[in-house]
Amino acid sequence: MAEQIRTVRVPIVERVLEANDDIAAVTRAELARRGIFSIDLIGAPGSGKTALLEATLQQLAERSAPRRRPAVLVGDLATRRDGDRLARWCERVVQISTGEGCHLEAGQVRDALAGVELEGVDLLFIENVGNLICPVGFDLGQNVKVGLFSLTEGDDKAAKHPYLVTAADLILLNKVDLAPYLKFDRAGFEADVRLLNPTVPILEVSATTGAGMDAWFEWIDRGVAGLLE
Amino acid sequence: MAEQIRTVRVPIVERVLEANDDIAAVTRAELARRGIFSIDLIGAPGSGKTALLEATLQQLAERSAPRRRPAVLVGDLATRRDGDRLARWCERVVQISTGEGCHLEAGQVRDALAGVELEGVDLLFIENVGNLICPVGFDLGQNVKVGLFSLTEGDDKAAKHPYLVTAADLILLNKVDLAPYLKFDRAGFEADVRLLNPTVPILEVSATTGAGMDAWFEWIDRGVAGLLE
Repeated sequence: MAEQIRTVRVPIVERVLEANDDIAAVTRAELARRGIFSIDLIGAPGSGKTALLEATLQQLAERSAPRRRPAVLVGDLATRRDGDRLARWCERVVQISTGEGCHLEAGQVRDALAGVELEGVDLLFIENVGNLICPVGFDLGQNVKVGLFSLTEGDDKAAKHPYLVTAADLILLNKVDLAPYLKFDRAGFEADVRLLNPTVPILEVSATTGAGMDAWFEWIDRGVAGLLE
Repeated sequence: MAEQIRTVRVPIVERVLEANDDIAAVTRAELARRGIFSIDLIGAPGSGKTALLEATLQQLAERSAPRRRPAVLVGDLATRRDGDRLARWCERVVQISTGEGCHLEAGQVRDALAGVELEGVDLLFIENVGNLICPVGFDLGQNVKVGLFSLTEGDDKAAKHPYLVTAADLILLNKVDLAPYLKFDRAGFEADVRLLNPTVPILEVSATTGAGMDAWFEWIDRGVAGLLE
C-alpha cells in the first residue's frame, strides 16, 4: 500500500518542483535585471539567522562605504517577530507566514517581492524557515545559498545534513563566542564539510559579539560586485 | 498555475497520511499488547535529542529500581553516528536512514521494530529527524510526543512552532547549564507555551550536567505505569 502511494506521489512532487523552478527562473532574471544580489539563508531553528541579519543590517546601515541598499524577506510558520526585529534596521522587510509550510517556495518569494520597492536595492536577504532539510530543494531565484550552522548545535550537523552542505555557496559557523562553554570539534566539522563540498568557504562569526563579521561583509560585497559566480 | 497544482496535491498528501495512520494504529496496538510505553522525541537539529537519550539510557542502565528495558529507534538523513552513540548504553538500537526525508513515517518505524527483539521491553524511544515542523504531522504509533527545545535556540521557538507545542505531551527545555551565557526569557517562553497548550508540563533539563533529569525519569516511569493517559 505504502509502495503504491509512493509511486503516485513522486510525479506530483516533481510537477510542483517544476512549477516552483519556473517561477524562480523568472525571479532570478528580474533580480539580475535590477542588479540585485540575493542570498537564501538556510539554518536550523535557533541557529541565529535573524540575529545574524540584525547585526548585518545594522552594520550595513552604519558604514559609509560601500553603501548597500538591502531588502529582506523572512519566512516563519507563525508570528511576525523576526520581521519586526529586522524592520528596526531596514525599511524593506516582508514577513512571509508559511502556516504549516516547512520551507519557502518561489511563489511566496515572488508575491512578497511584489510588495517591496526594489528601486535602488542591490542586496536581497531571504531568511528561510528554520529547517536544515526541506528548504534546500526549493529554488527561490536566489544567486547563492548560505548554510548557517552554530556551535551550539554540535559538530556533527554537516555530516547529518549533506544536502545543504553540498548545495551551499558559503557555510557560516555562528555563535563562536560560546566556544569556551561547549565541546565542538572544529576540525571534525570542517572535515565533514570538505567530504561533501571541497571548495565552499567556511566563515566563523558571532552575531552577538560581531566577531568574524568583516569577512562576511567582504563576501557579500564580492557577491554584489558579481565576483562570486 | 501554482493554485491549480495545490488543489491536486492536497488529496494525495491526505492519502499518504491516511496510509501512515493505518500503519501507526497497528503499531500502537502491538506496542500496547506488549506493554511498551513509547515516546516520539521531536526537536530541532542540535537541540540535544541524542545527548538526552544517551544520558537517559545510561542512568536507566545504572539505576536499580524500577528496572526499565528500553529500545531505541533513531532517524537521520545520513550517518549512523547517533545510533552508534546510543548503542553504547542500550542493546536494542536501530538507526533509520531517511535519505532526503525530513521526518519519520509509520512504515519506517514498523519496519525498524520488526528487527528488534521486543520481548521484555517496556519503553521505546523514537528519536525523530532533527526538525521542528514536518515530524509533528506523522503519527508513528507512539503513546506520547515530547517536544525538546534548548536554551541556545532562543526563547521565541515555542511561538514560532505552534504545531509541535500544541501536539506535545511534555515540553523539555534542554541545555539549562548554558543559561549564564545566554539571554533567554524563561517566563516569555512559558507564556508562549501556555497560549498554545495550557496544561503541558515543562521540565528543564541538562543532558550534559544531569540537572533536572529526576523529574524526567519520574515522568517516564509514570508513562510506563500507564498513568499519563
